[in-house]
Amino acid sequence: MRINTAFDALPKSYVFARLAEKVAAAKKTFCDKIIDLGVGDVKLPLPEIFVREMKLAADEMQNRETFRGYPPTGGYPFLREAIARKLLEDGANISPDEIFVSDGAKSELGNVAELFERGIKVLFTAPCYPAGAEANVLLGNDVEFLHATSEDGFIPVPPYGKAYDLIYLCSPNNPTGATFSYKELKAWVDYALSANAVIVYDGAYSSYVSGDKPKTVYAVPYADRCAIEIRSFSKSLGFTGIRVGFTVVPKNLGRLNALWKRRLGARFNGVSYVSQRGAAAAFTPLGKKETEKRVNFYKTNASVLKIAFQNRKIWYNNTCCSPYVYARCPDGMTSEEFSDLVLTKAGICCTPSSGFAGKENFVRFSAFALREDVTEAADRIEKLIF
Amino acid sequence: MRINTAFDALPKSYVFARLAEKVAAAKKTFCDKIIDLGVGDVKLPLPEIFVREMKLAADEMQNRETFRGYPPTGGYPFLREAIARKLLEDGANISPDEIFVSDGAKSELGNVAELFERGIKVLFTAPCYPAGAEANVLLGNDVEFLHATSEDGFIPVPPYGKAYDLIYLCSPNNPTGATFSYKELKAWVDYALSANAVIVYDGAYSSYVSGDKPKTVYAVPYADRCAIEIRSFSKSLGFTGIRVGFTVVPKNLGRLNALWKRRLGARFNGVSYVSQRGAAAAFTPLGKKETEKRVNFYKTNASVLKIAFQNRKIWYNNTCCSPYVYARCPDGMTSEEFSDLVLTKAGICCTPSSGFAGKENFVRFSAFALREDVTEAADRIEKLIF
Repeated sequence: MRINTAFDALPKSYVFARLAEKVAAAKKTFCDKIIDLGVGDVKLPLPEIFVREMKLAADEMQNRETFRGYPPTGGYPFLREAIARKLLEDGANISPDEIFVSDGAKSELGNVAELFERGIKVLFTAPCYPAGAEANVLLGNDVEFLHATSEDGFIPVPPYGKAYDLIYLCSPNNPTGATFSYKELKAWVDYALSANAVIVYDGAYSSYVSGDKPKTVYAVPYADRCAIEIRSFSKSLGFTGIRVGFTVVPKNLGRLNALWKRRLGARFNGVSYVSQRGAAAAFTPLGKKETEKRVNFYKTNASVLKIAFQNRKIWYNNTCCSPYVYARCPDGMTSEEFSDLVLTKAGICCTPSSGFAGKENFVRFSAFALREDVTEAADRIEKLIF
Repeated sequence: MRINTAFDALPKSYVFARLAEKVAAAKKTFCDKIIDLGVGDVKLPLPEIFVREMKLAADEMQNRETFRGYPPTGGYPFLREAIARKLLEDGANISPDEIFVSDGAKSELGNVAELFERGIKVLFTAPCYPAGAEANVLLGNDVEFLHATSEDGFIPVPPYGKAYDLIYLCSPNNPTGATFSYKELKAWVDYALSANAVIVYDGAYSSYVSGDKPKTVYAVPYADRCAIEIRSFSKSLGFTGIRVGFTVVPKNLGRLNALWKRRLGARFNGVSYVSQRGAAAAFTPLGKKETEKRVNFYKTNASVLKIAFQNRKIWYNNTCCSPYVYARCPDGMTSEEFSDLVLTKAGICCTPSSGFAGKENFVRFSAFALREDVTEAADRIEKLIF
């Protein structure tokens, strides 16, 4: 068997799978409730309007006249058109046939790399969500990390003078929360255009952007000539369990729009009609209001955690635009050590920066939790002895 | 941009995308209704029991206590366990942790190849469903076709003396309907074991198997040491629009079971809870009965078509176990010519064998249709002038 040897270059298990094992073990020894702020998984139930739409869609599947088989490649027009309207509000002029409904951002971070030759040079700004980098390693690509630093609020600067085929950016960043200003993002777009690189823009947390920061890479002129954008409905609509997202491959990106369609023909059969109907409900006035409510709820959770870190004198990357709080490990502890300490002493699960290719020792606290759990976690953090 | 040049080795568009364009064009000129027997897409609505389960699952998502976020890697235990029980009925002793719930067979046919090195030698028995071969080409693998012939009822025989890393088999075959007997399948398993090759067994149509033919590759002893099996709920439960299937990667396959889990960690986030609940309903007594009803309905459709071919003196591959009728093109016509003739003269869309890497000139008629459409198609076939 000629097994893909690239597997040997990955950590033995996926970071969040390891985390789940640690939490399971801690549950057996820790006397109070373990509060899981590790995996960034939403906790609020879905709004009634999303569920109602999914149930209506399911009902349609029961009648001969309204039954639907294979979804159209790229997604149902009703959803692609609703997404195009939403993107326009975000400042991106994208047509529905440049939008491809997906089963979520994680799969797509790897899938888009298949448009390119094996062995291409791929840059990830670190710290970063690990799935995209791991997928590129498995595909046989040459992955490099550009380490952003806490001194600069984890905002990475383009590697002028160096050449890459593919560059992954994430804003608001998972895990640091760092969010590009227009000027900072424009620098990357200009760099990519001049270096003939393609940006893969991970906008999974775009709904957390506030103020005048850009919500989409296409807010920058000419970005549609160099950037693919990947979005998710997981963290905005709470769709982690429903599995819908979308990917934008602009027609100005040369052959890529046509090749992406071709790839879908060979490798994908679309997203459940029921899920797509649920997602479309997010773009109604009520759906938007409900989404906003959830985003604000999780942001408030993040603020509750931040106050605890301030009181406990733990430095964190302060950002307006993220459901995560990225906190520095005290006293020269490694991120694994500190996250273990937080788990065993305070019963809180958080994610070590080692899981995000982080060079500095930090831990990520997810604010995707119920309010009572976050308040309890904040109390425990304030009392934490290290 | 270093675009994946393997795209140039594929037909410009996916076969069923081309077909859809032809049908759209024909609709403008053909005066009667176009009957679509091209894409193998189910037409009967979902049984009430599947829809009810999906709606219950959607309701659960609306309540804090029953809300579900990310699905567990590999699928919910309730579904994996139900599948394991079903496989046991089919003659396969497979444990739930060897079963991985997927979003359908098409994606998985390509995904499993990622377990292996780039450039491996991959054998497809032809004619075959094109997605798996196209995915392997895109991944940079060396794809060969072993052409089964109509004289042998399209049953392929192992290529003794030759070595391959990966071998794709499909039984009942799409498009020919050819279905391995136990002895024929055992020959392939024995060959793979001795040649150290891995079989990818496409069992998307296994529910159409009747009589004493094997429903799973694992009915053959030691197949769990050399075979991955890919199944779909599309053609049995009618789930083309819901997107659920599963892949079996046995623990006896060396590292592959662990590596598959690892790949899922990096590249996939699971299948909608709502879809998984719907799929699980298929394994209840009522669900089984409803599934069987549908399979029999489509098989009867196939019989209706076969009678028309007999009357019109068109040879077809006669098989008990398939929702497709694979018919020989008359008078030395190419498959493209005959399918165009059938479309423009009889208003029936069928798929040319050229789309399945077929060496002999055949067309595939899908029996996934409503009865009135199949009856009408049969009438038109009997009157077809060529």
